[in-house]
Amino acid sequence: MYNIDKLYEIVAERGHVCVGLDTALEYVPEKERRISPAESVLAYNIAIIDAVVDITACFKVQIAYYEEMGIEGMRTYAATIKYLRDRGALVIADIKRGDIADTAVRYARAHFEGDFEADFVTLNPYLGVDSIEPWLEWADKKGKGAFVLMRTSNKGRRDFQLRGTPRLYNVVGEKLSLLVSAYLGKYGYGAFGAVVGADPQSEEERAEAKAIRTVHPNLFFLIPGYGAQGGAASDAAMLLRDGNGGVVNAARSILKAWQNKAASDGLDPAAVDNTFAADAARQAALQMRDALLNAAL
Amino acid sequence: MYNIDKLYEIVAERGHVCVGLDTALEYVPEKERRISPAESVLAYNIAIIDAVVDITACFKVQIAYYEEMGIEGMRTYAATIKYLRDRGALVIADIKRGDIADTAVRYARAHFEGDFEADFVTLNPYLGVDSIEPWLEWADKKGKGAFVLMRTSNKGRRDFQLRGTPRLYNVVGEKLSLLVSAYLGKYGYGAFGAVVGADPQSEEERAEAKAIRTVHPNLFFLIPGYGAQGGAASDAAMLLRDGNGGVVNAARSILKAWQNKAASDGLDPAAVDNTFAADAARQAALQMRDALLNAAL
Repeated sequence: MYNIDKLYEIVAERGHVCVGLDTALEYVPEKERRISPAESVLAYNIAIIDAVVDITACFKVQIAYYEEMGIEGMRTYAATIKYLRDRGALVIADIKRGDIADTAVRYARAHFEGDFEADFVTLNPYLGVDSIEPWLEWADKKGKGAFVLMRTSNKGRRDFQLRGTPRLYNVVGEKLSLLVSAYLGKYGYGAFGAVVGADPQSEEERAEAKAIRTVHPNLFFLIPGYGAQGGAASDAAMLLRDGNGGVVNAARSILKAWQNKAASDGLDPAAVDNTFAADAARQAALQMRDALLNAAL
Repeated sequence: MYNIDKLYEIVAERGHVCVGLDTALEYVPEKERRISPAESVLAYNIAIIDAVVDITACFKVQIAYYEEMGIEGMRTYAATIKYLRDRGALVIADIKRGDIADTAVRYARAHFEGDFEADFVTLNPYLGVDSIEPWLEWADKKGKGAFVLMRTSNKGRRDFQLRGTPRLYNVVGEKLSLLVSAYLGKYGYGAFGAVVGADPQSEEERAEAKAIRTVHPNLFFLIPGYGAQGGAASDAAMLLRDGNGGVVNAARSILKAWQNKAASDGLDPAAVDNTFAADAARQAALQMRDALLNAAL
């Protein structure tokens, strides 16, 4: 069974929220930063995970926030993923790798086995299909999955992804659809899906988002751009199919929810601890889950 | 002074060879694998570095080969880079990162500061110019450099990079040239350059390679595809300008040179040690250096 099938089932049960653990030290309440940065981040991650694991589809761990802290950060990265997987949660390693041949195989071993083993990775297609293919071996071997960057939610997507006729992102989507047609799971989605942003800036872009969903029925989407990045629940819902087929990522709006809650409760931020922050994160995740479920109706 | 200026000066003095430390455990002579994999790789790297440091322009460390070994591998990655920089060598961290906004800043801190500090990184442009811009702050702050993937040496480059009119890789090159025009070093090259492969498969591709050099006079090139990957010295030389403006990467043909030497010397591979392998690596690097210098005339 592919991890993408497990993800489909969890979405059906718990909704579409993917919690992004892009945990910067600044997001951790000040009074909980008494230990080392890497240890503080790990303790914070565990508090957040415990608070939201039963109401989220999956977690996305952005490796940049851990690499920044060097070797100790990589320990926290490994420990966070291990804690999540021990709790039965599905983990997307947001590593955006893109390399070929033997190098791609080494990367796949690094992130689908050993210290950094995750359930899914994110991949960058710039080098070509031969930078995606080597990873597929792990779909059959261990059920592993990936989300390939297709149409991202940043402004710079216009520089290259929106170029040409058909547009570059559509060519990436076509090649990916073809590739995964040999790796279809039991709900009709390929073992590897795509990253498609939920932040349309115009009616034209809104129409494009709808078309992406129609043209690629076999691609499961990892959807960034929600919340702090500006996208609305209705924008994300356009990328779903029959209420499934996608997870919506949010990081800062959940990790930093305690800041708003402390302000509205009239609390001194210096008095906030991880328990308070975890409670605020759960409320934010529940609100997001319900907004997405309503929009998906 | 930008690192790209230092690189220019070293090329003028020592030639164009960039030694790729894509060190898989299998490349280490069997009798030197008695310690742990990560320690064996580090000891091998040090032997190779000592043997070639005076005849090479720079070193490229492919992080995939270290990530594969988990946390211990990352220690070897950090120790390899530190050893190189302590010896005064310029280090390209081949990490092919591509992310935006705060995430890009975290990555830049991860690879331009701290445990993993390198002199240059490689970047993937798929997300757009806003995935390159945040790194430029370190050009002014610490002289750091980057090589942005433009036209790679793998077969899959045809899937996306060669699409459209103008071709995608040319659009990437144009935007990069424009971006670095505000960061020009004293030899006319931008602080950030590009990855352009040296493996033309046809006369048309050969003409394209020549055009790339002419159209982008201010981009310093990191040139993969030489040696084990099939490219010839004359192909690489087409991407140089007045004998400079590029470094040519080779990994396996140097790291595994001892295998051919042992065979031609009639030696049992099991008898080979790191000293023998380092000697073979130096001979291979010298041959490559001279072939490139002759082709560049």
